[in-house]
Amino acid sequence: MGFFIVFEGCDGSGKSTQAALLLATLEANGHPVIMSREPGGTPFGESLRDLIKSSNDLDPLSKLLLISSSRTHLVKSIIKPALDSGRTVVCDRFTPSTIAYQGYGSNIDLQFIDQLNQFAVSNTVPDLVILLDMPVETSLGRKTERVKDSFEKEDISFHKKVRRGYLEQAKKDPLHWLVLNGTTDKHTLSQLVWQQVSTLMNATQ
Amino acid sequence: MGFFIVFEGCDGSGKSTQAALLLATLEANGHPVIMSREPGGTPFGESLRDLIKSSNDLDPLSKLLLISSSRTHLVKSIIKPALDSGRTVVCDRFTPSTIAYQGYGSNIDLQFIDQLNQFAVSNTVPDLVILLDMPVETSLGRKTERVKDSFEKEDISFHKKVRRGYLEQAKKDPLHWLVLNGTTDKHTLSQLVWQQVSTLMNATQ
Repeated sequence: MGFFIVFEGCDGSGKSTQAALLLATLEANGHPVIMSREPGGTPFGESLRDLIKSSNDLDPLSKLLLISSSRTHLVKSIIKPALDSGRTVVCDRFTPSTIAYQGYGSNIDLQFIDQLNQFAVSNTVPDLVILLDMPVETSLGRKTERVKDSFEKEDISFHKKVRRGYLEQAKKDPLHWLVLNGTTDKHTLSQLVWQQVSTLMNATQ
Repeated sequence: MGFFIVFEGCDGSGKSTQAALLLATLEANGHPVIMSREPGGTPFGESLRDLIKSSNDLDPLSKLLLISSSRTHLVKSIIKPALDSGRTVVCDRFTPSTIAYQGYGSNIDLQFIDQLNQFAVSNTVPDLVILLDMPVETSLGRKTERVKDSFEKEDISFHKKVRRGYLEQAKKDPLHWLVLNGTTDKHTLSQLVWQQVSTLMNATQ
């Protein structure tokens, strides 16, 4: 079985950058690896991603179900087969995003989300979740130069609830979560990430 | 509150025809009415419908979640506001389709589907479900001249399970279900439908 590593954090936290740096390091060290993202990761999922990003008035429950549909498809068609064949999977967002954004952020029942996630992923759960944490004002400030999408147009208080959702998940499961200060420079961050990932891989070899 | 009337049945059972005939009769009798369909019914939902119909390899759970997302949006943005304003809503498929197709047909846990439906529709439930029942061979035979889509490419045994799923739902809730023999000629059928609908409307006025 390959390793399943997920990057999490608010928009603008540097997830995609760190995921790409980890991918490069894994490849340089000879590990077979694939990169994915949520929502998306398959042609079907990317169609849903476009639809979510362009639907500004979509209610939180419709969004949750759409993301869950994309996730179900991604796990079955990409993530599980890759892990089964021994490849490491690096994913930009996974179930923790849903708990943080639609649960803590949009107040959808957490037990319902939990059940939905269990149906969607079955036993394909991350070996490691890396949270790039930072004050909401910092992550939102980083996005000012970029095109805003439907997630990012929510207000500061929403993003504060999302951040709390992440930190509470991390607190509940410290064995599988690594919380890093996302304001650290990206090279230092990537070294901290690699330290943890390589330790995990060596420990389970 | 307006009346919420849903047509159900296998593909080729004549639902769309009977829904259109009922719409015309309601309009002719001066009732404010709107027509909708599932999946679809809104620009967002119709995009999802196209995606479902064109994704032949979509797994049943991804499909279920996509349909549920479309339903959530349709209820919130179209059906509930219409009913609240006193209009009658005629819908081609609703929650009973999900129970029959994804539950009985594709073997997804019925309790999970039930919970999903409750989240999606809240308390917007049909006043009357009209099931156009017929042998599977008959309804599938009617579709031979049409373009086959992803639902219709399933095999006969799948459709037999779907039919059983409909009939068992009808049996459990006879007060809200009307089961008609879908092989009856369409004008007689439309009279039987109108008889039931007008009785229901008069009884609750």
